[in-house]
Amino acid sequence: MKILIAQGGGPTAVINQSLVGAVMAAKEAGHEIIGSRHGIKGIIDEDFVELHSLDNEKLMKVAETPSSALGSTRDKPDEEYCTKILNIFQKHEITGFLYIGGNDSSETIRLVLEAAKKANYAMKGFHIPKTVDNDLMENDHTPGFPSAARFVAKAIMGLDRDNEALPGVHICIIMGRHAGFLTCAGGLGGAHRVYIPEIPFNLDHFAKEVKETVEQHGRAVLAISEGIQDADGNPIISHFVDQETDAHGNLQLSGLPLGNVLADFLKEKGVAKRVRQDTFGYPQRCYPDASKVDQTEAFECGKVAVKSLQSDLSSGSITIKRTSNSPYTVEIAPVDLDKVANLTRHLPEEYYDKESKNITEAGRDYLMPLIGEIPQMERL
Amino acid sequence: MKILIAQGGGPTAVINQSLVGAVMAAKEAGHEIIGSRHGIKGIIDEDFVELHSLDNEKLMKVAETPSSALGSTRDKPDEEYCTKILNIFQKHEITGFLYIGGNDSSETIRLVLEAAKKANYAMKGFHIPKTVDNDLMENDHTPGFPSAARFVAKAIMGLDRDNEALPGVHICIIMGRHAGFLTCAGGLGGAHRVYIPEIPFNLDHFAKEVKETVEQHGRAVLAISEGIQDADGNPIISHFVDQETDAHGNLQLSGLPLGNVLADFLKEKGVAKRVRQDTFGYPQRCYPDASKVDQTEAFECGKVAVKSLQSDLSSGSITIKRTSNSPYTVEIAPVDLDKVANLTRHLPEEYYDKESKNITEAGRDYLMPLIGEIPQMERL
Repeated sequence: MKILIAQGGGPTAVINQSLVGAVMAAKEAGHEIIGSRHGIKGIIDEDFVELHSLDNEKLMKVAETPSSALGSTRDKPDEEYCTKILNIFQKHEITGFLYIGGNDSSETIRLVLEAAKKANYAMKGFHIPKTVDNDLMENDHTPGFPSAARFVAKAIMGLDRDNEALPGVHICIIMGRHAGFLTCAGGLGGAHRVYIPEIPFNLDHFAKEVKETVEQHGRAVLAISEGIQDADGNPIISHFVDQETDAHGNLQLSGLPLGNVLADFLKEKGVAKRVRQDTFGYPQRCYPDASKVDQTEAFECGKVAVKSLQSDLSSGSITIKRTSNSPYTVEIAPVDLDKVANLTRHLPEEYYDKESKNITEAGRDYLMPLIGEIPQMERL
Repeated sequence: MKILIAQGGGPTAVINQSLVGAVMAAKEAGHEIIGSRHGIKGIIDEDFVELHSLDNEKLMKVAETPSSALGSTRDKPDEEYCTKILNIFQKHEITGFLYIGGNDSSETIRLVLEAAKKANYAMKGFHIPKTVDNDLMENDHTPGFPSAARFVAKAIMGLDRDNEALPGVHICIIMGRHAGFLTCAGGLGGAHRVYIPEIPFNLDHFAKEVKETVEQHGRAVLAISEGIQDADGNPIISHFVDQETDAHGNLQLSGLPLGNVLADFLKEKGVAKRVRQDTFGYPQRCYPDASKVDQTEAFECGKVAVKSLQSDLSSGSITIKRTSNSPYTVEIAPVDLDKVANLTRHLPEEYYDKESKNITEAGRDYLMPLIGEIPQMERL
């Protein structure tokens, strides 16, 4: 079989583990496997890299390297785009398509396979999940999320110590447009309050809650999702600044100074004299300190995708299900594409306490096995 | 001897190593050692912690924990403040004073010892260096800097991979008000251009240089100091926003959106369509992933400070000198306080190339042994 593999959307710290897992499995099974540069854009441009001829030592180094080694794209294909993709597949006799990405990538595979069916071209396609947002349906969690959660938890562990040394309010703005999973990792790291997109954000309640925390602890570390929104579903940041959107219509929130705006707001409200903020930004998805669990699972997802190409199934999205929490075990297997494509998973209610604005014990139990070994913080 | 130890200024990832190094040495020598909470403020408030009675296991865990376990302060004492400190020292029969901090802390010790001399009170004082800015005179580098440099280099290594996957301009704003050392660690991590406070920053040249990088590489990763200033010595950020100052008259630049301002500027100039920015902020000084070299040296500085109290010297600032680069070796010893107090060290000219706006081989050789083991990045 001739397989084409591509990487789409925002990179993660382990997306190359999935790439290399697939390449290793394909090599073992004697398939040809080529990579497309910059996601589906590289298919149209016929910008390919032969992967099966690379030696394992180099491949394993690529696996350990954060971000998408093949390059990525934000292109969201329509029917016409997918027909073009199919034409290239036919020209190069590619009959297996693997796309590593978020729910958009799952939809892309669906559209390409639809076009193939219409054209009577026999091919298969599997989606390999990745997203630091952790917002794919049917998954306990998605590759990339545990490493991002590790970065967030560790950063907040350090910032919590920093904030105790020089007390005040410390605002941490965390990635996640629609789902609060990553922000909850801030709760695991020791944030006093956690604000997620799933729960309407009210500026007055916010000021009151932070004030209470400062009164109780003399300080406050806050983990706040970049995607927090008011009761009408408008992002809080939209009250203050202009925005740009990407090709998918997603707002670009990571770079905007939500942290500064909220810091000024808390100072104006007299909540604390010293208010500092950090916007964690892109290091969340690419800081080279990945979770070992995440690395192993991402690699395995790539392998399972190749095995799925060899099975009776013609398409699917690879998913991770947790089969036990103690000891932590997972099952990695494909489900139907349309169970994942274009859908968004939100934080389960039992992981978050709306009253205390923090994660619950269930949330802690969920996150803890994912982030890998973390340093102990000791106080005097 | 009864020793008082305190931690001042911005915390670092290894400031507790110095604390514990001193406590362990004091315990071994049979001295009493007490800690003051929140720097010199805790002396005035007589807010003390007995440290010699803590067991070594707990102490070693504290050493591994980032930030100042005793708490810190931004208080800058005047003569009156120092007389108060002296009165407390006399009351508690404290004859050894160790203060871990930047050049301000060195000056504080000088003032307290001056007051003691006037009052005919026999006591000794030593300054233990720390600063992520690396701007203390007489030092090859200061504890805290190598770990911050490690964070910056690793973050930029990841962001460079991210930026290659989704090309554009990526601006990284890095701590360092007056000295470009930490920003240079961005050059070690792979930034295409590095902008430091020591070299006047010109917005038009900046746009031109970044445009050239984008033309050559199709993208640009930029390491930019928060303290960049124009030819007249005004911070670039001062052209755009209001500022607040701390008690030392230092501008608070970390939280202000210099990155956003520069990103908008480059977009307006048509340098690139996709311009993203990260302000590395406080994780630079407290992310729990310290450099092993830094940990060892910081611990040793604490030990040497206690040994200096036992020597013929009555005061001094502990310094690190590099005696060889390959193999990397250092000598840790005290110098006169006034060689460090209130002075600022800048980046040596030979570490930075003004033409290419990046670090030189000499700069690389300087930084490389400090940051510890870093992951390899492999490309396809």
